Amino acid sequence: MSSDFRLNDVGEYEKYYGSHSKPELLKEFVYGIPELHRSEIEKSDFIAKAGCNATATILALYPLYKKGLVEKSVVEVKVGSSEAGNKPSLSSHHPERSGSLRSFKPTNHRQIAEMSQELGARVDFSATSVEMVRGILATCHVFLNQDLSEKDIWKIYREFYGEEKFIRIVKDNEGIYRFPEPKILAGTNYCDIGFERDPNSNRLVVISALDNLMKGSAGQAIQCFNIMHNFPEDTGLKFPGLHPI
Amino acid sequence: MSSDFRLNDVGEYEKYYGSHSKPELLKEFVYGIPELHRSEIEKSDFIAKAGCNATATILALYPLYKKGLVEKSVVEVKVGSSEAGNKPSLSSHHPERSGSLRSFKPTNHRQIAEMSQELGARVDFSATSVEMVRGILATCHVFLNQDLSEKDIWKIYREFYGEEKFIRIVKDNEGIYRFPEPKILAGTNYCDIGFERDPNSNRLVVISALDNLMKGSAGQAIQCFNIMHNFPEDTGLKFPGLHPI
Amino acid sequence: MSSDFRLNDVGEYEKYYGSHSKPELLKEFVYGIPELHRSEIEKSDFIAKAGCNATATILALYPLYKKGLVEKSVVEVKVGSSEAGNKPSLSSHHPERSGSLRSFKPTNHRQIAEMSQELGARVDFSATSVEMVRGILATCHVFLNQDLSEKDIWKIYREFYGEEKFIRIVKDNEGIYRFPEPKILAGTNYCDIGFERDPNSNRLVVISALDNLMKGSAGQAIQCFNIMHNFPEDTGLKFPGLHPI
Amino acid sequence: MSSDFRLNDVGEYEKYYGSHSKPELLKEFVYGIPELHRSEIEKSDFIAKAGCNATATILALYPLYKKGLVEKSVVEVKVGSSEAGNKPSLSSHHPERSGSLRSFKPTNHRQIAEMSQELGARVDFSATSVEMVRGILATCHVFLNQDLSEKDIWKIYREFYGEEKFIRIVKDNEGIYRFPEPKILAGTNYCDIGFERDPNSNRLVVISALDNLMKGSAGQAIQCFNIMHNFPEDTGLKFPGLHPI
Repeated sequence: MSSDFRLNDVGEYEKYYGSHSKPELLKEFVYGIPELHRSEIEKSDFIAKAGCNATATILALYPLYKKGLVEKSVVEVKVGSSEAGNKPSLSSHHPERSGSLRSFKPTNHRQIAEMSQELGARVDFSATSVEMVRGILATCHVFLNQDLSEKDIWKIYREFYGEEKFIRIVKDNEGIYRFPEPKILAGTNYCDIGFERDPNSNRLVVISALDNLMKGSAGQAIQCFNIMHNFPEDTGLKFPGLHPI
Repeated sequence: MSSDFRLNDVGEYEKYYGSHSKPELLKEFVYGIPELHRSEIEKSDFIAKAGCNATATILALYPLYKKGLVEKSVVEVKVGSSEAGNKPSLSSHHPERSGSLRSFKPTNHRQIAEMSQELGARVDFSATSVEMVRGILATCHVFLNQDLSEKDIWKIYREFYGEEKFIRIVKDNEGIYRFPEPKILAGTNYCDIGFERDPNSNRLVVISALDNLMKGSAGQAIQCFNIMHNFPEDTGLKFPGLHPI
Repeated sequence: MSSDFRLNDVGEYEKYYGSHSKPELLKEFVYGIPELHRSEIEKSDFIAKAGCNATATILALYPLYKKGLVEKSVVEVKVGSSEAGNKPSLSSHHPERSGSLRSFKPTNHRQIAEMSQELGARVDFSATSVEMVRGILATCHVFLNQDLSEKDIWKIYREFYGEEKFIRIVKDNEGIYRFPEPKILAGTNYCDIGFERDPNSNRLVVISALDNLMKGSAGQAIQCFNIMHNFPEDTGLKFPGLHPI
Repeated sequence: MSSDFRLNDVGEYEKYYGSHSKPELLKEFVYGIPELHRSEIEKSDFIAKAGCNATATILALYPLYKKGLVEKSVVEVKVGSSEAGNKPSLSSHHPERSGSLRSFKPTNHRQIAEMSQELGARVDFSATSVEMVRGILATCHVFLNQDLSEKDIWKIYREFYGEEKFIRIVKDNEGIYRFPEPKILAGTNYCDIGFERDPNSNRLVVISALDNLMKGSAGQAIQCFNIMHNFPEDTGLKFPGLHPI
């Protein structure tokens, strides 16, 4: 569950976390995002659960990077208070944390290392905390190196995630839930992904949402566990979410 | 107070808002951000109050654009529910709006036109609504065309805003309020600005915060009014904010 | 689901709601709280779903009234915004409703009629809205007509509700969740009940919590439906709730 | 500011707080609610700032007790998280405290001692924490020993508080702010009081609201300080509050 074995490269690890006491084990571990590494997870006994911000970012961007379509990407995650763990501190003290909209890690977030490893490129990443307990919303500004329509983008995401149980494309022209939104995912293992092409530039805005305690943590760990043991992948993960909430 | 006379160029207006019934008046109006147009405001009888998202974005980026230091910038504002006005609707209905973290305008926001006019360049802009009533936080990812240290950046902001009553540079290495944050600005006319250099790229993250009903609206209008009438600029605008809130 | 057939007595109905167009049907309907009327529900085709505030209040107080132990009771419910329905209005407009702590019905609430019918006595009832979407907390100040210990009270509640699937007694001496609390019941069909004896008077404080959209509405309707059709009573109602939320 | 010298009677003190190391000083202190003890405050060098919950309760009930009109009263305060002080703990940890509606002190609250002292009678008191940072709402169910109309009640409150700068009677038949509400008092020194007669019993519901950090604490201390030093009573206390918030 920790970040100890998420990176394959000890040098990258040390850049963000300091020295590693068991570097020889790094190569044994599979990075625990099933949508990217399912067949390796099936065969492995060592899975490093992916970071929550990294999961939201990687799932949003992976198809585009894999296809070689990205010139540059800038990502900002908005996160709830449960991401900071269960240890009380001044920054988690309700009168201080309540109503906050706080730029807590504008640059140099540790999970950038995971994103680089999985996407094969460095993203410009910032993290902001918002008034929420569970949830992550990643807003990914992707500058494309070719002219793609929204239809083309749909096709690419369907190709990668069309068979995935826990990834849904959320993109509507009407209503108030036109794009992914974390509150309706609380308690679920979904990662919802949506997008909009900027008509005035080469930018594509990709939006992903998940529950940091589920698809961003324990839920994804259970999904990996199910795969390792050849159980139906959604065993214990069927909660569809609440509305309103 | 409306958006009718913020743009000098009728073509730009029509691109975002449709046809204009009094285009001849556009040139009469001064764009109402005192930090950029104080001397014109002093002499004018027609001030178009700046948009709230535009004010947060423009004040954050103006010194850098003015100095010609920007290669590209990507901005995401996070906004409270009062920005949508006082008319009840399904999207403002508390059970739907509460706890939302909603990408409501990923691309093509109308106030981009104001930003382009004042900054002389197009920014890639998105807007997300968060659980909050008053407030805007703008996270601006600025890609610099030269290598500048944080000290250099400080100097530039001080040069532009050092004498400004309603702009404060907020940047601390310790504590929980290290960067600008809207909740402590509720009811005030401040625009707080902070920044952090990304050690791994040419990115500078500039963060600005304000109360959309004050510096983003009525407060800035009063500030302009004070200038027009030669009153002390902070008349009626001395509220320092509440903490905790 | 409506309040049209909750009352047996047309006179009581008219006092709170105005004239009734089908008074002859009133006697056909069973009041839909299974813990009080399960055997009648089994045999009936007409169930009037109980009111949400009434359910929280009645379940908290029923054992004590039934045993003839109550001299007087004063109840205040604290309710979320979803109780007011899904129609936007000024009072549900997020900037007005957010953060509210609003005494919206200090006296004369309509559901008092249901409480009187089921408890056989009039309670002094008030309703206050709080910052929350789903949930009701009823704080019931019960003045006892005899000296009962907390152990005695436990015994009484166990006698009435010991076999009930959807009622849990929540009463701890330590920790932060010592008494019932609505947020951890969001999406569940539970009514949690706890209590504390006032050492300085004949007061017993009974606290009940539920999700107004579940045990207070659709969930209880499904529970009744299951009973009517001889299905396991918790069919479709097994969600255990989320934490943290 | 502490609770050390609020009680005149050492016996009462010890019942709630344990032994007192300087009981001889108790008689020197004046209980710091100006509306009750202004002339004593003027002459004293020792003021014990009143408790926040006690201030809301006492101000709501004082005129009725003073006039001998009360048979019994039951009070429940709803309080924000800043009341618990600035020390982080599990119960103030944002993921646990957020969205809570928690019966934290159903009986035996320490400030009952102050209320008894000032009102000359024991009230049945409970305290519940709600999602809010600043603020207290006291809902007081007063059972009257005579039949009084709302007009009579108005007259009584006007008699006691008509000249008070920081007490306002809030009671409207229309609109959404018909009764006192803490959010619009954040940062102010007001105690707003409203009421409604129950048409079906001898109950009068009195509702009071204040900011626990102002009229419930520092604000009231400053008010006392102003009186002691013969300054205008509202010096430093003129903030009228924010809306929306």
